[in-house]
Amino acid sequence: MRIALDAMGTDRAPQPEVVGAIAALRELEQDVEVILVGDEATVRAELDKHGPAPDRLEIHHAPGRVTAADAPASVIRKKPDASLVVGLKLQEAGEADAFVSAGSTGAVMATSLFTLRPLPGVDRPAVGTLLPTVGAPSLLIDSGANVDCKPHHLLQFAHLGSTYVRDTLGRESPSVALLNIGEEPGKGSELVAETYGLLTAEAGINFVGNIEGRDIVGGGYDVVVCDGFVGNVLLKFYESVATLLTTRLRRGLDQSVAGDELEFVFRMLDYSETGGAPLLGVGGVSIICHGESSPTAIKNALAVAARAVRTDMVKHSARDVQGVEVR
Amino acid sequence: MRIALDAMGTDRAPQPEVVGAIAALRELEQDVEVILVGDEATVRAELDKHGPAPDRLEIHHAPGRVTAADAPASVIRKKPDASLVVGLKLQEAGEADAFVSAGSTGAVMATSLFTLRPLPGVDRPAVGTLLPTVGAPSLLIDSGANVDCKPHHLLQFAHLGSTYVRDTLGRESPSVALLNIGEEPGKGSELVAETYGLLTAEAGINFVGNIEGRDIVGGGYDVVVCDGFVGNVLLKFYESVATLLTTRLRRGLDQSVAGDELEFVFRMLDYSETGGAPLLGVGGVSIICHGESSPTAIKNALAVAARAVRTDMVKHSARDVQGVEVR
Repeated sequence: MRIALDAMGTDRAPQPEVVGAIAALRELEQDVEVILVGDEATVRAELDKHGPAPDRLEIHHAPGRVTAADAPASVIRKKPDASLVVGLKLQEAGEADAFVSAGSTGAVMATSLFTLRPLPGVDRPAVGTLLPTVGAPSLLIDSGANVDCKPHHLLQFAHLGSTYVRDTLGRESPSVALLNIGEEPGKGSELVAETYGLLTAEAGINFVGNIEGRDIVGGGYDVVVCDGFVGNVLLKFYESVATLLTTRLRRGLDQSVAGDELEFVFRMLDYSETGGAPLLGVGGVSIICHGESSPTAIKNALAVAARAVRTDMVKHSARDVQGVEVR
Repeated sequence: MRIALDAMGTDRAPQPEVVGAIAALRELEQDVEVILVGDEATVRAELDKHGPAPDRLEIHHAPGRVTAADAPASVIRKKPDASLVVGLKLQEAGEADAFVSAGSTGAVMATSLFTLRPLPGVDRPAVGTLLPTVGAPSLLIDSGANVDCKPHHLLQFAHLGSTYVRDTLGRESPSVALLNIGEEPGKGSELVAETYGLLTAEAGINFVGNIEGRDIVGGGYDVVVCDGFVGNVLLKFYESVATLLTTRLRRGLDQSVAGDELEFVFRMLDYSETGGAPLLGVGGVSIICHGESSPTAIKNALAVAARAVRTDMVKHSARDVQGVEVR
């Protein structure tokens, strides 16, 4: 399988991308190939710093680069030679099986929609983000793609999230919780109250009911469903708290006394462990990483992409979401 | 001034209430009186443990108690002798100037609406909660009273929050930020995109624009406006993360090495410092505390209530919100 990696996505590109790709090729199965998409000279110069290039790593030249100033929806038209666009087009043309980028989230989403297109029956592809918890990570979906949602959109998110978690994390019959402001059925906004009914009635979803904001960090839910406004606010808030605390704590601590409890906290808060966030519901694999991704984060995102391809996640998504259309 | 305190609100009532009231009377101005509302024998027994009762403390007998099982909206009818209802009715009758309770949040809200009634022109009273940040706390409004909001409701929240922060915290011209998923005008859901326009055009609001979830913990905003669904999810999530981290960190740390940095983190995360959350937009002072409130939290909530009364916060709210009606 071939994974196209946007080599110019992170703030410090292409260093984290190149180092992450090399590490991934060392750890992943032997059939995985990585295509570094970016300016050839720039990527080559970085690659040369790290000894002989691995066999299964190639460079695909793309001189342009998407910046935060580019309007996401027009990137595909205005910057056709940007690494982000070229990488996704490789997948559209069947020359790659997956795409990973730490570039502008909006641009990756918009360009993925244009090139990979929504799956039949999917009205709103959504971003799923793994949140660290006390237990196993929970997939928060939608974490930012769709701000104004209807109940059947949230129902589709539940399907897309379930399929993703089952395929890439190997969790059978993933539990799905609806993020709400109370536990009882009927609680919450019109949107979530109606969604509760849809989720309860839906076959193929292991719906476990409403949860509140306070229940997330304790873990125990494979998929947490919400609209993209709530998800985005929550995700960004969590990240900022995590960053603040780890910075302060590391500064304030004599490292020698950091016992197991603290190691746990740091690990929980260390986003580089979780890899990227997939755009789910499109006809391909598109993984979005943070702009500040470390080589480890890139490596983990490549591993996630490889699992999604290997397990036929996209085909399963199309099957599982079938019939859940606009009502 | 006289503050009615629900003596049976916390999980460990009446101990935190009685101890908190005694501490408040020691610290607050000499004209503050506290009325402990609850079962007389129970409250008296607790009071007797703490030496001679202060002069400005009295017990008002109310044998009933609201529990989590009671439907909030029917408490006033079904439990007329409950401490929560009796305490609010003291204010309604002019026998108290403010009310503080750590009982069921829903019941305090509903009963406050029935007894104190919304101010003229206020469609949706809202709960304001002070969030700990790196800097001064920010008031999150609405933090849970109204799940389905219209833009003019959020505009009213901005006024109510501004008045509260100005009066009780002494911050002149409080900055108001709109919680959104991007910083540019026009970003976000229909609700917040339209609210942005209203806030920009409104006189008497120091509107500083959109902020994202990641901007909250850094502080710098006196009032953060959002609908009650987003606010409630965010607030409960923050509390749970704070609780988890402090528990883990305290357990994992050799206390002797906790330097300034850690003390800061603990203080930031210690909700007992912030006191209660006011229901704003009603014709009286009603402060809602956590069910697990400590004596310190109760004491701080009484202090907040006293400041609200002393500064004529309710009268100012009625004036400032004038003209912001359903459009």
